[in-house]
Amino acid sequence: MTDDRTAGGGPTPHTPRVGSADDILAVDIGGTKLAVAVVEPGGRVAAYDRIETPGGLDAEGLWRTLESLMDKTVADSGTTSLGGVGVGCGGPMTWPEAEVSPLNIPAWRDFPLRDRLRARYAGLPVRVHNDAVCVAVGEHWRGAGRGRDNVLGMVVSTGVGGGLVLDGHLIDGASGNAGHIGHVVVDPEGPPCKCGGRGCLEAIARGPGLVEWAQEQGWRPEQRDVTGVDLAGDARRGHPIAESAMRRAGRALGIAIASATHLCDLEVAAIGGGLSQAGAMLFDPLEEAFRTHARMEFARQVQVVPAALGQTSGLIGAAALVVAGDRYWNAD
Amino acid sequence: MTDDRTAGGGPTPHTPRVGSADDILAVDIGGTKLAVAVVEPGGRVAAYDRIETPGGLDAEGLWRTLESLMDKTVADSGTTSLGGVGVGCGGPMTWPEAEVSPLNIPAWRDFPLRDRLRARYAGLPVRVHNDAVCVAVGEHWRGAGRGRDNVLGMVVSTGVGGGLVLDGHLIDGASGNAGHIGHVVVDPEGPPCKCGGRGCLEAIARGPGLVEWAQEQGWRPEQRDVTGVDLAGDARRGHPIAESAMRRAGRALGIAIASATHLCDLEVAAIGGGLSQAGAMLFDPLEEAFRTHARMEFARQVQVVPAALGQTSGLIGAAALVVAGDRYWNAD
Repeated sequence: MTDDRTAGGGPTPHTPRVGSADDILAVDIGGTKLAVAVVEPGGRVAAYDRIETPGGLDAEGLWRTLESLMDKTVADSGTTSLGGVGVGCGGPMTWPEAEVSPLNIPAWRDFPLRDRLRARYAGLPVRVHNDAVCVAVGEHWRGAGRGRDNVLGMVVSTGVGGGLVLDGHLIDGASGNAGHIGHVVVDPEGPPCKCGGRGCLEAIARGPGLVEWAQEQGWRPEQRDVTGVDLAGDARRGHPIAESAMRRAGRALGIAIASATHLCDLEVAAIGGGLSQAGAMLFDPLEEAFRTHARMEFARQVQVVPAALGQTSGLIGAAALVVAGDRYWNAD
Repeated sequence: MTDDRTAGGGPTPHTPRVGSADDILAVDIGGTKLAVAVVEPGGRVAAYDRIETPGGLDAEGLWRTLESLMDKTVADSGTTSLGGVGVGCGGPMTWPEAEVSPLNIPAWRDFPLRDRLRARYAGLPVRVHNDAVCVAVGEHWRGAGRGRDNVLGMVVSTGVGGGLVLDGHLIDGASGNAGHIGHVVVDPEGPPCKCGGRGCLEAIARGPGLVEWAQEQGWRPEQRDVTGVDLAGDARRGHPIAESAMRRAGRALGIAIASATHLCDLEVAAIGGGLSQAGAMLFDPLEEAFRTHARMEFARQVQVVPAALGQTSGLIGAAALVVAGDRYWNAD
């Protein structure tokens, strides 16, 4: 499918499309979907396609699937030539080399994603970063954090990830891992976390963690293989345990964002990912916990808001790694 | 007194002093002391003096006291002319304008420190930042974080402050308040904090907070007006309640630094301030809590160490605001 979307400053969806040498091929690689877009220099998505991440393939099979999707999307876009390739991919990865080992894509372990893309798109800049970092960049560049210099972008879904833009620039940290808000400690006596720690935000607020907690409390959903999104649905329908689970997630998020606000002097925290669609069920307790703990004078103006760009934020951010590299790319 | 000290790359203390047009007048203003130095461009302290912060003066009286101290130190240094003025001052303050209202200096409320210094040192750059931020800058420039790009500098004393250097640059945040590690939440059900929140690191680990906790547990020191440093002394002498208090502080510090490490992908956390002199009594439980919670792969290399520059770190950092402004000064 080809799909016209605006994202901030681009032309409207009905403006006739003119190919540009500066278009960016943007890729978003996760455990549930592969998404590809051609993004114009201003952030407008000129073509977009996505498929479920295929299971049962080996590393080369998955790579060939991605190649097909990229070729189709470039053809759909009508672009005459590309100015670069930007990619968000699930972690962990080495950075900036981007040998990727996405937790939820077992077929790729130390897969040399950046090298493969460089070989395929010879001469073009190829930049790869963590997928949640790309969401943060997208939200800063053209989304809920636009025009601000200090933004935490988050993804709350199967895991809890994030990225930090401070003083107007993406923060990479020592190894490209800055932004791991999911492993900020919100309750030192809390549940064990997959990282080996205890009481991390992710251990409490990740969808599967919430589902597990709700089931322990007696939640008995009718469907099988339920997710945090199902839980949020039951919360909206007034199920008291589901409501408690959303309060639990909101409170953990509020505490972690308060800590991040005090440490980094933020202006905006933008929350994306499936669970963020729970609306007031999540954001009301989040706001309450945030205001309880973020009490320094300078924290009063901070806004905690849903991400603005929806499912294309990671693609738009991946494109920004290339077209706005002065702010978002600090590596070779 | 005039005092020769080395700090990193400068000449040895016995090198004859030659005045330089690039010397920086550095000032450190806190509730207990006023310290002034002339710092060479490489970070060597050429002259140093300090006095107890006088009580009982009004705003202008305190300013005149500072003027005298600055004049004396400049004269002692033998510098022929100054290249700028760098200042660390207790918060809060507006930034970068530096109208200062230091919590522990009631004589100054909205005192126009930067304007006064600009008028007195006309034509020279004058740069003012939070005193704990200056400690972090000093430790990054010439101390325990030298040569690293991602450093948290902390001061653990009557309060708990800090500053962040990420991707090689000082982070200011929206209002110059980045680095407030003291208000990272380490126990959401913990004691109330002066900021209005609950369970902040500072509420647990600040010296007076530890003393209060120890006295509630039955600690009965012989002297009056005890501080965290006295408590640390009793801990070293084997007093079990004092030992517990130091473990409590160390644990809170370890949790907060783990959160900061995951959020910012740090390389070094350098801890200064009076309580940091407690040595293993503090750093052993700190390290244990840190390693319990900082479990992401990328956090394994992080070093948590005592600050290296001692009482001059804030002055050396204040000088760096001017002589290394490309890394440490983002304002006008």
